[in-house]
Amino acid sequence: MEAVNAEIQGSAIVSVQGLPICSVLARDVNDGIVSAMSAAILSVSERAVEELARGDLKRILIEGDEGIIILSKAGENAILCTLCKAEAALGMVFLNIDSVSQKISTLLD
Amino acid sequence: MEAVNAEIQGSAIVSVQGLPICSVLARDVNDGIVSAMSAAILSVSERAVEELARGDLKRILIEGDEGIIILSKAGENAILCTLCKAEAALGMVFLNIDSVSQKISTLLD
Repeated sequence: MEAVNAEIQGSAIVSVQGLPICSVLARDVNDGIVSAMSAAILSVSERAVEELARGDLKRILIEGDEGIIILSKAGENAILCTLCKAEAALGMVFLNIDSVSQKISTLLD
Repeated sequence: MEAVNAEIQGSAIVSVQGLPICSVLARDVNDGIVSAMSAAILSVSERAVEELARGDLKRILIEGDEGIIILSKAGENAILCTLCKAEAALGMVFLNIDSVSQKISTLLD
């Protein structure tokens, strides 16, 4: 059982094609829109790190002044979209993401 | 005069429409591609922080295992794309970005 991290406020598992697989998000959020945007940002970012010789893409942080969106690959077929507080301890959040991503990869790859 | 930050490896100023304004990048990098991708990622990210109630967009970090791309607005009309090392002291880099962004905004807004 994972330890709960109170700084993580929501998350979504999205296919690389941009379709929702499952999510825990606020009720008024459209998970179809979130999924399509996550896949679009990840896909362009993969191309950007290649063009700018930054190695393999690890993750994308989209920082708003009221919170952060973290996008990362979870295996070959899925993208994990994680929402956390603006002041979150990111090291711990990244560990949680890595652990969950491995489980998603085991299930979906 | 700005202090030089050796952890910053390149940068580009891009219009919000995705066209290059000026850049200091490696010779084999296509700044037209970088500009288009920067504007696309920034535009979708602005929509994502809105949909996911993260406040106003501050910046985007695209982390590769060999370096980081940082995208941020520089005034109303320009996007600043900054490349730094993977292990860079980001606090200092963000201060440099804020300072340069204000100058770009003064020139272009």
